[in-house]
Amino acid sequence: DQPLTIIAGPCQLESADHAQMIAGQMKEACEKAGAQYVFKASYDKANRTSLSGKRGPGIDAGLQILADIGREFAVPVLTDVHTAEQCALAADAVDILQIPAFLCRQTDMLLAAGETGKAINIKKGQFLAPWDMENVVKKVESTGNTKILLTERGTSFGYNTLVADMRGLPQMAKGGYPVVMDATHSVQQPGGKGGSTGGQREFAPLMARAAVSLGIAAVFIETHEDPDQAPSDGPNMIYLDQMPSLVDSLMQFDALAKANPIRI
Amino acid sequence: DQPLTIIAGPCQLESADHAQMIAGQMKEACEKAGAQYVFKASYDKANRTSLSGKRGPGIDAGLQILADIGREFAVPVLTDVHTAEQCALAADAVDILQIPAFLCRQTDMLLAAGETGKAINIKKGQFLAPWDMENVVKKVESTGNTKILLTERGTSFGYNTLVADMRGLPQMAKGGYPVVMDATHSVQQPGGKGGSTGGQREFAPLMARAAVSLGIAAVFIETHEDPDQAPSDGPNMIYLDQMPSLVDSLMQFDALAKANPIRI
Amino acid sequence: DQPLTIIAGPCQLESADHAQMIAGQMKEACEKAGAQYVFKASYDKANRTSLSGKRGPGIDAGLQILADIGREFAVPVLTDVHTAEQCALAADAVDILQIPAFLCRQTDMLLAAGETGKAINIKKGQFLAPWDMENVVKKVESTGNTKILLTERGTSFGYNTLVADMRGLPQMAKGGYPVVMDATHSVQQPGGKGGSTGGQREFAPLMARAAVSLGIAAVFIETHEDPDQAPSDGPNMIYLDQMPSLVDSLMQFDALAKANPIRI
Amino acid sequence: DQPLTIIAGPCQLESADHAQMIAGQMKEACEKAGAQYVFKASYDKANRTSLSGKRGPGIDAGLQILADIGREFAVPVLTDVHTAEQCALAADAVDILQIPAFLCRQTDMLLAAGETGKAINIKKGQFLAPWDMENVVKKVESTGNTKILLTERGTSFGYNTLVADMRGLPQMAKGGYPVVMDATHSVQQPGGKGGSTGGQREFAPLMARAAVSLGIAAVFIETHEDPDQAPSDGPNMIYLDQMPSLVDSLMQFDALAKANPIRI
Repeated sequence: DQPLTIIAGPCQLESADHAQMIAGQMKEACEKAGAQYVFKASYDKANRTSLSGKRGPGIDAGLQILADIGREFAVPVLTDVHTAEQCALAADAVDILQIPAFLCRQTDMLLAAGETGKAINIKKGQFLAPWDMENVVKKVESTGNTKILLTERGTSFGYNTLVADMRGLPQMAKGGYPVVMDATHSVQQPGGKGGSTGGQREFAPLMARAAVSLGIAAVFIETHEDPDQAPSDGPNMIYLDQMPSLVDSLMQFDALAKANPIRI
Repeated sequence: DQPLTIIAGPCQLESADHAQMIAGQMKEACEKAGAQYVFKASYDKANRTSLSGKRGPGIDAGLQILADIGREFAVPVLTDVHTAEQCALAADAVDILQIPAFLCRQTDMLLAAGETGKAINIKKGQFLAPWDMENVVKKVESTGNTKILLTERGTSFGYNTLVADMRGLPQMAKGGYPVVMDATHSVQQPGGKGGSTGGQREFAPLMARAAVSLGIAAVFIETHEDPDQAPSDGPNMIYLDQMPSLVDSLMQFDALAKANPIRI
Repeated sequence: DQPLTIIAGPCQLESADHAQMIAGQMKEACEKAGAQYVFKASYDKANRTSLSGKRGPGIDAGLQILADIGREFAVPVLTDVHTAEQCALAADAVDILQIPAFLCRQTDMLLAAGETGKAINIKKGQFLAPWDMENVVKKVESTGNTKILLTERGTSFGYNTLVADMRGLPQMAKGGYPVVMDATHSVQQPGGKGGSTGGQREFAPLMARAAVSLGIAAVFIETHEDPDQAPSDGPNMIYLDQMPSLVDSLMQFDALAKANPIRI
Repeated sequence: DQPLTIIAGPCQLESADHAQMIAGQMKEACEKAGAQYVFKASYDKANRTSLSGKRGPGIDAGLQILADIGREFAVPVLTDVHTAEQCALAADAVDILQIPAFLCRQTDMLLAAGETGKAINIKKGQFLAPWDMENVVKKVESTGNTKILLTERGTSFGYNTLVADMRGLPQMAKGGYPVVMDATHSVQQPGGKGGSTGGQREFAPLMARAAVSLGIAAVFIETHEDPDQAPSDGPNMIYLDQMPSLVDSLMQFDALAKANPIRI
């Protein structure tokens, strides 16, 4: 088993400078802690709670920023796609295409993503059971692409609340693909603030640690230097200046977990 | 309050003949019972549980069949769209564009649908609370289109199960738009059969009746002459030959409900 | 099928006069509407959210008030028991012993209740599926007592919320025992007000009507002349002066439902 | 922070010899690993799914066995009580009285337990939110007893399934009392086998580890040398011969967690 990968960055791209600042700080923190780092940011937030929510720079400007990040910092870059058409475009700029949770059963997009040959990170829909992902995986595999990651980001639990079921991590891992814990989205409170999504930022490090202790491949964390001013997902993003110590402690739990693998 | 509308048809289009057979029988049943009838069928099932599930005739052939149904039977026709691009195409052929539940927060598609000027039936996502639909509605309203319907089709309840919360109907109705009960999808068991979705067909008439007793605007029911042989959603579709008596009884409950309106 | 029974009264006994006032008004309303009436009230609230919540007059004084109600108004009386020991005592005073939802799996109490020979109304636990009640029923049946009623009062749905699954009514009815819808507790928000339970009184009539439209045996409704001043369950009780029109409309839905029975 | 406590034993008492065998092996395993050990077993299973389920030796014989265990092995002993009357009796024999989850809001039993002056372990009801336990705690505190432990054992999640929300552990810990993770009951599938409760034994070590990584005070684990032959809870109990290595790895995670405390 390889050491933990940290997938981290701002929820949405704000500017090239901002993205580079975060990429630089995260890369440094991950290198110090011995973690593989993947930069993450969205060029478009296509399903904001409300119409007035900011959506990001758009695909052309956004992919340019992302491609530059990858080249300048020599880190893999992940971004999420929202239509079948966007897959090939994004594949020219980034290393990992991410399928959003709401869209994880849209066959055409899964096929288009698979056909790019890039790694595909599929977020489990809030409305799916862990074992339902097997059928989702088969759609991507049908393209011949088996560079697949599966991400837990919480399951619907009553209204305006998600719950992260730790059993889902080993259940998804049964298929043999790397499993990722999305620590910041799994503490969202969808629609919980009326016109936007609430969140419980304080629980995100805890979700990351509990999952890492089970021996997963990667943690996904959105981070911002000033989350309360961020254009989206502020309530659940972690402060950037808290990331180095978080990453450091996660690596310790990762080492212990991988020295003590759990067999399901 | 107007009498109940019945939105009914097969889950997916199988052939022009098949669609016409169902449209004809349903129109006759609804006319006898005094119900407004809307034909419903999908030209593409874009999010089947598994890749091997049949998807339907596709958009070109499908919209032709649907347009013909509307003209020949003089009934409004509803179909679901899956991308922003499909909205204008579908709007040339049908009367009501339906936004699938998984896609109900995809801003671009909601805007494209609204801009067609057609009526828009938005299915509430299985991951949303009834009050979350207010933000969804505003996206469509921003186009100037207020011909909006809101449909309850069940909410995630643990794994592989949905529950229909009757409180959601009057809660969604607060915004003033007609509310629809999707009686057959709300008894689905998503992923419940491994490679396909299970369902509890026997409970669909019950869901329809409970909702109609609250004074809603319309019921959505998928029906087939031989559900167990249908290419999709067989486990939850109602036998076509049972529809006349079901429609008849629903109209009696509708009349009683509208004579005794409930104020929330 | 017999006409609908209305089980109604205040959440907890406040005084003999208060109980008689409600019993008298409810009996008159039910007689006018053609409904069988059962008086309901608790002599002890044994599981209040917080210690400071009022608990009622206690078993001795309470059972006396209840026995008097039954005799003076010639109506059956229902009350809930909280330990095995209370069963025989309560059986001397009332006609129907009710097993609280939290306690519906406590074997000794179910047996003690069954052995009284009185009718037993078992509330389905918020943590149980409808089909789980079969095992609960068998515990009472083992005493030779088959005068059993089963009540739906909502199922846990995330935190601090219940949802009433309409499928549960016919599912519980499969065993052949009368099924009751508890319209006021199924709209509780347990713990939703911090130190006490919240509720959505406005949805209770709706829950009653939806359930009655499915042809159930009885509706359970807590009512008070001034719910906001009631010592418990105020947020979900219905105003007493609204009960006559509610009962009247429910009887109309009941007649229609029983003329159109749904076969599951 | 003190090192992790392991509360472990068979679900129900089978015989004095059997209890001693388990106590002996567990004590040895815990001593080797540096864990405090508490023996746990039930003298009565008062809420079995079905009437035919075995209930144990009863209170008199059971408490004798438990008292002997405590004396012979010099370990604290925990058992669950089921009525207010049992509290004083059990307090003469054991060190920790446990309030079952279904009964966690029964005021009289909480008060009777508190009045014994023994430590009280309260299991959070499957129908409660973590923050609802504050009111439960106050009932025990009102007796002047503040030797309280709070246990997470899963929350209702749809039908026949529980989910363990890791956020609940720090939320319950806010009150300052030690928090326990019940690793074996939180993977129960209540009623999942028709006449008995199912379970997912394979996930119990994972639940324990995830919780321990958050720095909790104790883990509760039911164990048996041959779970499939155990009279109750077999599907979720852990094989006794797997306990030493499980305890050993949990102590490693505990040490790391307590060296890296999470602040909420």
